[in-house]
Amino acid sequence: MAMRIYLSKDLREASRLCADDNRKTLAEQGVLMINLMGSPGSGKTTLLEHTMRKLSGLYRIAVIEGDLYTAKDAERLSPWCKQVTQINTEGGCHLEAGSIGYLLKEEALLDSELVVIENVGNLICPAEFDLGEDIRVTQLSVTEGDDKPAKYPLVFKDADCVLITKLDLLPYCNFNLERVIQELQIINQELVIIPVSVYNGEGFDTWINWLVKQIEAKKKSVLS
Amino acid sequence: MAMRIYLSKDLREASRLCADDNRKTLAEQGVLMINLMGSPGSGKTTLLEHTMRKLSGLYRIAVIEGDLYTAKDAERLSPWCKQVTQINTEGGCHLEAGSIGYLLKEEALLDSELVVIENVGNLICPAEFDLGEDIRVTQLSVTEGDDKPAKYPLVFKDADCVLITKLDLLPYCNFNLERVIQELQIINQELVIIPVSVYNGEGFDTWINWLVKQIEAKKKSVLS
Repeated sequence: MAMRIYLSKDLREASRLCADDNRKTLAEQGVLMINLMGSPGSGKTTLLEHTMRKLSGLYRIAVIEGDLYTAKDAERLSPWCKQVTQINTEGGCHLEAGSIGYLLKEEALLDSELVVIENVGNLICPAEFDLGEDIRVTQLSVTEGDDKPAKYPLVFKDADCVLITKLDLLPYCNFNLERVIQELQIINQELVIIPVSVYNGEGFDTWINWLVKQIEAKKKSVLS
Repeated sequence: MAMRIYLSKDLREASRLCADDNRKTLAEQGVLMINLMGSPGSGKTTLLEHTMRKLSGLYRIAVIEGDLYTAKDAERLSPWCKQVTQINTEGGCHLEAGSIGYLLKEEALLDSELVVIENVGNLICPAEFDLGEDIRVTQLSVTEGDDKPAKYPLVFKDADCVLITKLDLLPYCNFNLERVIQELQIINQELVIIPVSVYNGEGFDTWINWLVKQIEAKKKSVLS
């Protein structure tokens, strides 16, 4: 009887190779891929609903939804996207590059200009897994409290952009916005930080303009 | 050179044995141990601050704080507890029974009447690890949205009590309280569900009375 034992180190290496493959595939097509992370209930799907509504006439967008169970989030986004794919991890706490690579074989995804991955709601485990994305966006809602960057540094340190969401609830929360921005800038000097509320619209155009700039730069990179 | 390979099954089994040991130790002393779980920012430490303040004159209480980094939560609770111990997981997404067992060797913990473990802020991974607790309490804040019990069922299904927190923010959130309570009752018919706000005091006495009843029952069990 043959028996194979995969050690954790090999699995991590395999995952990294998958991520590199995904990045290469996307680079050839000029497709921008975003990995959106945040706590359960930080407002990831709500942000995407508004973002897709704004961009759906302008770009071909595909979304990959990571959840333990249910297709609730995919259903919410389907009116606004060319394609929505739900991955149910059945208890798993993060997405991995292999699953994304499998989906990137589909023509509909590669024919997009933007692929957004909404990762499983979790501020810890997803940060450790490169999916082959171009850009990492981490959400922090003001209702979660201003101690989160210090307590969960990795997901903020490795991000390209942090969206501070639910800004409309700031008057009701004990959240020092200025201090959080300063702390984030110390963790990562290159970080783009955008406080945003999709309900009163504050900061939303700044987010959209930044995102459009990234999509256009990726498209241009394949032409040059 | 000797090499040992632990397979996941063995590790899970070892963890279960540790949890059983912890439960036995606590039963002999009549100490109630609670495992408090919830998303980052669901208000676990804030609830404990208010709970400890209320009970500190009545019971000997010890707290074990699980966090990736920092001792912020332990510092917040130290004025109200006989003993606070911080466990930094350094990136780890949950606590395990072995670490708790190590702490239960300390006299100060076993001399308590209540040990509260504030688990790492995570709605997924901690639910899979029995720490030897008597009671599991899961928090869900209204700002996280009412789809969470369906999306993260395990942490609610295996709980003894669910606290629906930040009730004072209900008027500003899209959260159907009645439907969430119904859904939770379907997931787990034995579940004690307490909507609570530590800011306006709503439901707080119900929580304290329930908790006191559990502490007293555990003390009595050792005498009988």
